[in-house]
Amino acid sequence: MKEKIIDVLLDNGGNFISGEELSRQLNISRTAVWKYIKEIRGEGYVIEAFPRKGYRMKKKPDLLLPREIKRHLNTLRLGKSIEYLARVDSTNRRAKEMGLQGALEGTLVVAEEQTRGRGRLDRQWFSPRGGIWFSILLRPDLSPQQAPLLTLLTSLAGVKGIKNATGYSLYIKWPNDLFWQGKKAAGILTEINAEMDRINFVVVGVGINANIRHDHFPEDISSEAISLMEEEGESVSRPKLLATFLNEMEKMYDQAQLEGFKELIGEWKKYSTTLGKRVEVKTPRGIIKGKAVDINEEGALMVEKEGGEVIHLLSGDVYLS
Amino acid sequence: MKEKIIDVLLDNGGNFISGEELSRQLNISRTAVWKYIKEIRGEGYVIEAFPRKGYRMKKKPDLLLPREIKRHLNTLRLGKSIEYLARVDSTNRRAKEMGLQGALEGTLVVAEEQTRGRGRLDRQWFSPRGGIWFSILLRPDLSPQQAPLLTLLTSLAGVKGIKNATGYSLYIKWPNDLFWQGKKAAGILTEINAEMDRINFVVVGVGINANIRHDHFPEDISSEAISLMEEEGESVSRPKLLATFLNEMEKMYDQAQLEGFKELIGEWKKYSTTLGKRVEVKTPRGIIKGKAVDINEEGALMVEKEGGEVIHLLSGDVYLS
Repeated sequence: MKEKIIDVLLDNGGNFISGEELSRQLNISRTAVWKYIKEIRGEGYVIEAFPRKGYRMKKKPDLLLPREIKRHLNTLRLGKSIEYLARVDSTNRRAKEMGLQGALEGTLVVAEEQTRGRGRLDRQWFSPRGGIWFSILLRPDLSPQQAPLLTLLTSLAGVKGIKNATGYSLYIKWPNDLFWQGKKAAGILTEINAEMDRINFVVVGVGINANIRHDHFPEDISSEAISLMEEEGESVSRPKLLATFLNEMEKMYDQAQLEGFKELIGEWKKYSTTLGKRVEVKTPRGIIKGKAVDINEEGALMVEKEGGEVIHLLSGDVYLS
Repeated sequence: MKEKIIDVLLDNGGNFISGEELSRQLNISRTAVWKYIKEIRGEGYVIEAFPRKGYRMKKKPDLLLPREIKRHLNTLRLGKSIEYLARVDSTNRRAKEMGLQGALEGTLVVAEEQTRGRGRLDRQWFSPRGGIWFSILLRPDLSPQQAPLLTLLTSLAGVKGIKNATGYSLYIKWPNDLFWQGKKAAGILTEINAEMDRINFVVVGVGINANIRHDHFPEDISSEAISLMEEEGESVSRPKLLATFLNEMEKMYDQAQLEGFKELIGEWKKYSTTLGKRVEVKTPRGIIKGKAVDINEEGALMVEKEGGEVIHLLSGDVYLS
């Protein structure tokens, strides 16, 4: 019933609707209407009420509430089941736990705040309120060797989702970051749980610096990080952005499982800022220097060294040289 | 104190030791001795008591109790922390859960019985009382691509551990089974939790058909399965076998991390029943026919097809053809 009242108020735009009208439409007493309105206000919605005019939704809460996400969602699996958390250590950690417990493909874990947000190699990821921190559980019919392709797919979904929701044009820094104006605006952390030749499940974690004031970034990342609100100084709609992201991602995910990744790789290349450049890639097993010539069919970066030898890298820190 | 009393009784072999002597050695009252003896009996130890003679350990319980495992263990990490369960759905499932929660390298989960024991690709693994069902949590400094080498290492530790503990000579069927007299005596299931270029943790699950009467095997596996007790009709000491397994495994694991897997691969080949044979390998992505020519440095089986092309396989079902 709460959902229905919120829907009616939102559909009604800036206009007032009387308690009587609400009570008639929803077939509940006016006292019940009043009780629900109180509850809805408790969730952060600002609802005006005037005698003889009725109710009007003045402001939705700036939260990633499942119902606000679902309002913009047109997926069949991604985000159909949502675990919403005001605060969590790490959405990836929680999603992996749910994966072990048998949670369904497409399960979304989303939090307003992470206390132990992580990037690759256990690096800290600053995750205060205002950002969009979420993880998606996937159970793809892919080999573990193809898992890097899911990072690639998610990067592309991120660029397109953000473009659709905000109009901003980001680009991709291989393997897992989205950049804007030369700074990091979003990152992806893909983790797999697998047997040798079969994926049990994958958790794709995404962090988007959506509405974070620049002076709130810690000093050590301040010069490299950017938040989407900075350009216009105006905050972006986080539920809409997240839903748009998931809409794009599901389309690509379905396409990849049906037709393979070839087309997606082609499109990914259009947004890549890495290919064609001279790079230095730091990996856990050493530094590779050369030219980033291509992405192969498993999502590995192909780096051509001085002598012509081509190295395939699954991950690493890329520096332009 | 219970541990100490058990130790004294076991050290005393088949001889009686008086309550007075026990009370003196352990510096506790004779009433306390009697109370502890009662508790120890409650755990399944059979202790005889006669007036004027004292106590004698007649029979240890046929259980994989941590203290019985540790009696034979000479490792520094593997099995130093043990979670012992009378019954569990799957030791791998439990160990993965503990891995997510930050459990230490070497943590051992061992159960008398699994209700949902699993082999590769979610296949059922018959896991009644009498077998040895355990999982070890590892946090190796290896790339995810090297994970198959841990299955190889564990196979070799299994062959050697079983040889040491029982004298029986098993051999290895790539990728993850130990065979004896042409039948499956043990299996290994390696699962990884990883980022693209870094392992978070690995769980190596092992199931050994130790003391299972042949007529207890379900009909569908009866012709392919064998239990170690069948040969002599005599049961093997399960805690000793498990400890011996872990002793071998830690030696190899330390060696591999220090010097790489080259030597282990060489030794593995001595016990392999797959190499050199014409095989048909069923994989999730199709059937490969050819000759199993070698194992590469990542633990992949190299199969040479008719035309000379060599395929590298990480896992699969091998049939001799």
